[in-house]
Order: sequence, then structure tokens, then C-alpha cells
Amino acid sequence: MAATASNKRVILKRYVTGFLSEDDMEVVTTEAPPLAVPAGSEAVVVKNLYVSCDPYMRNRMTRHEMPSYVPDFVPGEVLANFGVMRVISSGHPDFKAGDLVWGITGWEEYTVINNPESLFRINHPKLPLSYYTGILGMPGLTAYAGFFEVSKPKKGDYVFISAASGAVGQIVGQLAKIIGCYVVGSAGSDEKVSLLKTKFGFNDAFNYRKEPDLKAALRRYFPEGIDIYFENVGGETLDAVLPNMRLGGRIAACGMISQYNLEWPEGVKNLFYIVTKRLRMEGFLVFDFYDKYYQFEEEMARYLKEGKVAYVEDVVEGLDAAPAALIKLFTGRNVGKQLVAIARE
Amino acid sequence: MAATASNKRVILKRYVTGFLSEDDMEVVTTEAPPLAVPAGSEAVVVKNLYVSCDPYMRNRMTRHEMPSYVPDFVPGEVLANFGVMRVISSGHPDFKAGDLVWGITGWEEYTVINNPESLFRINHPKLPLSYYTGILGMPGLTAYAGFFEVSKPKKGDYVFISAASGAVGQIVGQLAKIIGCYVVGSAGSDEKVSLLKTKFGFNDAFNYRKEPDLKAALRRYFPEGIDIYFENVGGETLDAVLPNMRLGGRIAACGMISQYNLEWPEGVKNLFYIVTKRLRMEGFLVFDFYDKYYQFEEEMARYLKEGKVAYVEDVVEGLDAAPAALIKLFTGRNVGKQLVAIARE
Repeated sequence: MAATASNKRVILKRYVTGFLSEDDMEVVTTEAPPLAVPAGSEAVVVKNLYVSCDPYMRNRMTRHEMPSYVPDFVPGEVLANFGVMRVISSGHPDFKAGDLVWGITGWEEYTVINNPESLFRINHPKLPLSYYTGILGMPGLTAYAGFFEVSKPKKGDYVFISAASGAVGQIVGQLAKIIGCYVVGSAGSDEKVSLLKTKFGFNDAFNYRKEPDLKAALRRYFPEGIDIYFENVGGETLDAVLPNMRLGGRIAACGMISQYNLEWPEGVKNLFYIVTKRLRMEGFLVFDFYDKYYQFEEEMARYLKEGKVAYVEDVVEGLDAAPAALIKLFTGRNVGKQLVAIARE
Repeated sequence: MAATASNKRVILKRYVTGFLSEDDMEVVTTEAPPLAVPAGSEAVVVKNLYVSCDPYMRNRMTRHEMPSYVPDFVPGEVLANFGVMRVISSGHPDFKAGDLVWGITGWEEYTVINNPESLFRINHPKLPLSYYTGILGMPGLTAYAGFFEVSKPKKGDYVFISAASGAVGQIVGQLAKIIGCYVVGSAGSDEKVSLLKTKFGFNDAFNYRKEPDLKAALRRYFPEGIDIYFENVGGETLDAVLPNMRLGGRIAACGMISQYNLEWPEGVKNLFYIVTKRLRMEGFLVFDFYDKYYQFEEEMARYLKEGKVAYVEDVVEGLDAAPAALIKLFTGRNVGKQLVAIARE
């Protein structure tokens, strides 16, 4: 195992303002870290197989006045996000060379992970490993926890999901169908709408780019109103949803992707409906639900093996393609969960 | 008892757009209704003693496209709101002439109430009767239910209250102090700020009109952040609060008075903090807590008798003064709970 292997990596070139562009990132090749953990260290060295592209990464590329829930990226340093990895050297008693894990890693070929306690074991390696960047990983747990723990669904509830064909939305919709909800999703292309209706079994779906009056569209799709809105986009979609909520409705605020590239977020005007309709809008972050991960993994692995949920990925090959893949999330050109295959074993 | 008594009343002249003005209402004198209930009717006839001026009345003066939680007022018809009344004739088995009650009545001298089930009995008539338009009535229950049931306070929580010297705010702040919270309120004049700090025992208070940067002011008053925001005003105050909330904070959305006279509400830009700080923002209406009223009445009456809570009213005399009194709520010129004394017994 050569200590002098090279390490291709994606670094942040500068803090980003406005719309993210490929120029904000750079793919460089440096010397790899020592691929064996020094004696006495509890670190592990991993070979990265897949890394996930997630919208929240954009927030980390802006310098924040006040610390956010995750540290800002640093110009000149490697990007980091959830990935699927093979342990190649371990100083930690819980891991050994050859183990498959997922967790936060670098956008690079090899990474030294100094806090291996943050890693999750992969218990279903016969399912596609890449799924652990998505339906079996962070976005899957996000969908599961956000839907069941935050929006408190009941059979028969009317559920609306924005960005519904994305990593989280497609899973929320299928979980909602499993427990007997009526589910409508919005997405930004006819191809995605077709996926929602056929592959994911949503009751209905629409292309928001073709709806000049989103509030009226929602009234058409939900003549009885919306019990649960799974919020992935924010801004004017949220404004159109609020008047369409039912009394006592719940809004699980998972993300607001429409706002991440705006220097000044759009104002949401219809918040008074929170009072008049007694709505509960609650934000959540997947980190707060990590203790439920292995229970979730078993349940979702079973659904996958039984064919009860479908899953669509958008995979690009190699780190050179990673910056463009990340940007696709914000232009809406990805179809399904976006990820990068760094090494296929 | 003359069936031909006259009845002074305040009617809505026209649907209101923009800022409410006295011209939108009219005080007229008509013939009183028959002051004895006809045989067979279950109605009651009441003499109105006090009526309450509440911000939500403004919402009922606009014609709504979609039905709201309370019906719109109708031009040409009498305004209605919570009041304190003496029953003068009753066809209902639960009430008899002479009973003191509170509930929804007309802005007039005499009212026939066709649904007496909606009335509450007054069990502490030795306390000032006018208190049943406020601390012992709807605003009191609003404060009590919104604070305890919606914002779920714990001892030591940092609590911020806007419109803090108003009918609801002054009560929320004192309840919060009773259970050991740290309480800061904002209000729109130095006189009100002084009331908050002295009479109501808030830990601190400030005049928002003197704070050019509300977000910075809140950071000064809450260096540790805010656990509970009791929302009475909306708009830019909410925008300044959101970045100052602590992880897991709660926003009890009671009202948004800053928005009621605007044709287009202000946009709230900082909603993404709901995600990153895992906030819960929940609206509520007092109607949902009516079943707790008599329990609340006993508790609050005890606090009043023991001197544990103070209460400040702003009373105008007579229905002729009622339109101007209602408008004071929106210019912020009332000090304490605004009400109209129609008849003092």
C-alpha cells in the first residue's frame, strides 16, 4: 500500500455569492495521505466509493456571520459530504480494513477520518452500495424522520411534497403511500412528473414550471386542502401552500432549495395563515435522528427487498464531473438522487 | 321594561381596505329589540356593560375570498366582539334575568343572543367586571393557552414577547415570570416600556421604535438567544427574531397586528432558520381552548386576589368613543387592554 498514491480532490476555490458555478470549485490532484494509520491513532483511512451531492452543501459555501448547524467550507480545502467508503486502515477498535461504512468524508479518493465514531456500518451490502448515499443513508433517514416524527401523518392525510422526485421527496411520497395517505408532488420537468406518477406511485403530480398560478394549482389538486406539506423548496411555493393548508395542518421544513442561491431570500407573505389555520411549521435536521438510523436501515432495506419502494439515482462518474453534478441540483437537471461514483469495486 | 327603548350601536359602514379609519364605522341609534324573550324561544336578551376592542376585529372588516376562522362583518350591520353582559330576559334553562355572563355580543346597548350556549358564566363578580373582557376573558385565556399549551415553557427559558403591554402580552409575561422564565418585552412607547419593567415585573423591556436594528437589539437583550417567542406582531419583528432563536425554540403565533392594515403583507425573509435551528412555529386560536376556560378562570382569579399578577386597562366611556378606541390598537396609542364601557352598573 503506497504512501505516495495521488489523491484527486474537489476543493472550494472561494466563498460563493449568488448562483453556484463550476468556477467556484476546482479539481486538483495532490499527494494522498499516508494510507496506513500510524500506531496509537484511533483514526481510520478510507477509500471513497461514492459521494452524495446535497443541496445543503451550497449553504456551507457562504461565509456566515453567525455559525450555522454545520461549519462553513474553507476556500482551498476539500469539500466534504456524506459518502460510502471502504476502510483501508483502522486504528479504531470498531473498524477494520475491508469494512464498508457511510458517513461524512471528503470529495476525494482517500480520506483520513479522525472521528470514526461518526461513521455508520453498512449492514446490507448486497443492496447497491450507492444507495447508502441516498435511500439507505442521510436523505433516507431525513425523509423517514421528517415524515413520521415531524409531520405526524395519519392514514388518509392529504400530503403535498415539493421537489418530489429528489433524494428526499421520492422517499417521503412512497412512505406516505405505504401508510395510506393521498400524495401529490411537484417537480420541475415533465419527465420527473411522469416518474412520480408511474415509478413512485404518487396519486398525482404536476410540473410547477407550467403552473402560472401555483396557489390555484394546489387548490385544484387538493380541493379539500393539504394536511401535510413536506417543504423542500421555500419561497413562493410556501406562499402558495399556506392558504391551501387545512386546519391543524403540519409543515415539515426540511429545506428551502429555491432560496440557497439568492443573496436576499424571497419574503413569504402568507404567514398569517399559521394563526388562522392553527398550523404547525417545524424545522428539523437529520442529525437529531441519528439514533434511529439502524432501525430505519432495517425497515427501508426490507421495503427495497420486497419491492415496496422504488428508487431513482442520477450518477456521474468520477470527481472531475462532481462540480457540475452539484450544480445540477440547483438548475433542477438531475433526475433522482444525485451522486458521484468515485470508485466502483 | 319598555319594548321601545332605543339602542345605540356601532355599525360597519363599508368593507375596509388599508388603514382602518373612523369613517369606516358609524354610530347609529335604532329601536331596541324586544327586551323580553318571546315564549318558546331559547334566546337570551342582554344589556351590554363592557365590550372589548381586539386586533382581530380588523380582519373581519375585509371581505375574504376564502372563509376565515370567523365570518366577515357585513356593511350596515352591527359590529360584534367579546363583552360582559347582564342577562335581562332568558328563554334558556341555563340562564335567568340578572345573571352576569361574558361572550360574543354586539357593539350596542342591548343584544338578543340566539345561541346562549356560547356564553360563559362569571364566577368572580367581585373582581372588576371589565376584567372579563381581558385578563379573565378571551385575551387571558389566549395568553394562558398560547403560553402553556403551545410554547411549552420550562423554568429558565428565555422568553420574548412583542406588543408586550397589550391585552395578551402583559399576561403572558407575568405567567412566564411566575414559572421562572427570563422575560423581555417590546412595546411602542417609553410609557409602555416603563409599565413592563415596573408594574408587570418583566426582566427587561425596550421601545422598538427607538431600535433602528431590531435584530441587533434582540442580540443585546438575549445574548444566549430566545427559547420562546410569543408572536403578536409579525412582519419585520418576526424577521429579526428568527436569527436570534435558540436551537429547538418555539414560536407561538397568536397574532400579527403589524400586518392587518396592509393590503400586501410584508414578506418574512428569514424562515430558513426554522430548518437550521429546528424551530417550531405554531399558530393557535383561543376557540380551541374554550374547554379549559373555567379552570383558567379559577387560576387567574386566584392570582389576581393574591396580587401575583397586575393588570392595566385602557377604558373609554360610551359607544360614541368606540370607533376611535378600536383604531388606537393599530396606532399603538392604547396603554393596556383596550375596552369600551357601555353601561356601568
